[in-house]
Amino acid sequence: MPPELAHAAEFGRVLLVGAGPGSADLLTLRAARAIEGADALLYDALTCAEVLDLAPARCLRIQTGKRAGKASMRQETINRLMLRLARRGLTVVRLKGGDPSVFGRVGEEQAFLAAHGIPVEIVPGVTAASAAAAQFGFPLTHRGEARRLLISTAIVADGHLLEDGWAAGADAETTLALYMGRDQAGAVAQRLMAHGRSAATPAIAVENAGQRCARAIPTTLSNLARDLDAAVPTGPVVLIIGEVTAQADIAAATLSAEMRRPLTVST
Amino acid sequence: MPPELAHAAEFGRVLLVGAGPGSADLLTLRAARAIEGADALLYDALTCAEVLDLAPARCLRIQTGKRAGKASMRQETINRLMLRLARRGLTVVRLKGGDPSVFGRVGEEQAFLAAHGIPVEIVPGVTAASAAAAQFGFPLTHRGEARRLLISTAIVADGHLLEDGWAAGADAETTLALYMGRDQAGAVAQRLMAHGRSAATPAIAVENAGQRCARAIPTTLSNLARDLDAAVPTGPVVLIIGEVTAQADIAAATLSAEMRRPLTVST
Repeated sequence: MPPELAHAAEFGRVLLVGAGPGSADLLTLRAARAIEGADALLYDALTCAEVLDLAPARCLRIQTGKRAGKASMRQETINRLMLRLARRGLTVVRLKGGDPSVFGRVGEEQAFLAAHGIPVEIVPGVTAASAAAAQFGFPLTHRGEARRLLISTAIVADGHLLEDGWAAGADAETTLALYMGRDQAGAVAQRLMAHGRSAATPAIAVENAGQRCARAIPTTLSNLARDLDAAVPTGPVVLIIGEVTAQADIAAATLSAEMRRPLTVST
Repeated sequence: MPPELAHAAEFGRVLLVGAGPGSADLLTLRAARAIEGADALLYDALTCAEVLDLAPARCLRIQTGKRAGKASMRQETINRLMLRLARRGLTVVRLKGGDPSVFGRVGEEQAFLAAHGIPVEIVPGVTAASAAAAQFGFPLTHRGEARRLLISTAIVADGHLLEDGWAAGADAETTLALYMGRDQAGAVAQRLMAHGRSAATPAIAVENAGQRCARAIPTTLSNLARDLDAAVPTGPVVLIIGEVTAQADIAAATLSAEMRRPLTVST
């Protein structure tokens, strides 16, 4: 390793941190502490202000991602930025919505940083499906009814619909959680029904899962796209398809005020 | 609703809380706060002392579950106990390893309590697969390599091997996380290979994922059962099968001391 890399490895590091579904109190304590200790914080447009406020005053705050459809920083630019900051000896926290290991590109970023001698730590988080289920009171697995949970995305790297692999989501005993599927809901539902999943399968679309402003749209597989379109969601949406979603209690989302106090973490 | 139920509903309540993978700092802030406010805490033998210590001195502590193979409180007994405590006006926290919506029987408990007029809140948690991946530095999904994450259990209610549905886990682009599969690793591997999953598929068994004492056993699908047996695990094991596990860095599990300080939460 060249001397400057050995130096960087000694002082700087990168933490790839799960920010959870968007409420600050759904951060893990480890994630909150990581943010509190950050010299540089990379976040995207979906990160809530309460989470950003945990960072110390000295912390550099860098927005890397914008909302779907608008330009974001390229992955290579983000990688180079993390490298440059860590080489300055900074503790860099890269926030990722949900759990970084699930559709968080953690493999790519970690490989890049490791190749340059930068130590990387990953802090897990609560994924959107878990947040949606807890908030609206339905389980993701259920004895004798939902033996498996399949977490999938609808799109591939170029933005097109993923064409293969839908058979697994057609099994009646599988709960399918579809991430980044808002615009492909109809196409995915068609493929699942073509593979034999019943058109009457209960489904729920949850916008802004885990956040105060969350909204649940209960529907069925065949009506999913229509009902989702009619709701005109503007935030991120997780689609959950399976018998378990029939247990959803939309009223349960009104959590008690006690659970919603502003938080402080002392370490 | 009879008057005594209306009364109970007004004062007592039950929180089904994800305890995460077992390190206190992998609790969400909301979960930590719930434990701090508990009048009664139901937990099992896998709950770590640091988590229990968050409960106030006044809190009733009730152990409901024992380690695999030993007698645990029956589900009906647990349900009745939660009901009785909530009817006394207590805030009851039922801790569940990982995320309560994933193999946590949250659907059954919630239905029972709701039928008796007891308000229920669910607090999501970090599931074992996320904890294992973060700790040992591999992703659960990876661009062009692992497009889906399937979380499954190996056994059905009566303790026998689940016989159907293994085809979904045989897809080369699916990461399979198998919960409660320690004793069925060989049988599951056989079924996956019979459905076409390559015997050389990288796999990793993680014991006590997310905890200080975690141990990773990197292997392949065909050697999974043999290598797991040879390791003689005594704690809970999550098996993760898929190309992504080849990225695991066992050394990455040694997290920095800074991330491991004892924690306090002020609310």
